Amino acid sequence: MKIDTVSIIGYLAAFGTTVSFLPQAIKTIQTKDTSGISLSMYTLFTLGTLLWLIYGITSHSLPVAIANVITFIFASIILGYKIRYK
Amino acid sequence: MKIDTVSIIGYLAAFGTTVSFLPQAIKTIQTKDTSGISLSMYTLFTLGTLLWLIYGITSHSLPVAIANVITFIFASIILGYKIRYK
Repeated sequence: MKIDTVSIIGYLAAFGTTVSFLPQAIKTIQTKDTSGISLSMYTLFTLGTLLWLIYGITSHSLPVAIANVITFIFASIILGYKIRYK
Repeated sequence: MKIDTVSIIGYLAAFGTTVSFLPQAIKTIQTKDTSGISLSMYTLFTLGTLLWLIYGITSHSLPVAIANVITFIFASIILGYKIRYK
């Protein structure tokens, strides 16, 4: 697999936006405080990450595909807590 | 500009994840309730969207570039409120 500068930027971007959902997921699991979290946001966002995943695969953009598999999992967890504890 | 199926999926994905930050931004501005929002998340996420923007431009992926300009603006607003009202 060839790693060029463009892909490196993509992987750094993927790392930033993917890893960013980890502290949110941990915070939500620990505190169950979902009052400040928007249900509409996480519903749309979770669906959006699924579409990004399909786009990443069909456009052969590995950073986009990998980032959105992981983000989809985190976003689903947060969405699940929001629905359960709203 | 040629619009193919792959790009349509990309634009739908861009729409979903971008628009999703609007209800969160509105909710945060109206309620100033940022207790459930993770500061680490939004710091990393805002930086990540900047990198995605650069990746979108350098990899000639217009959906990625457009989505991340708008998401960057929304994420910055939410981050600003989190820092101000934490």
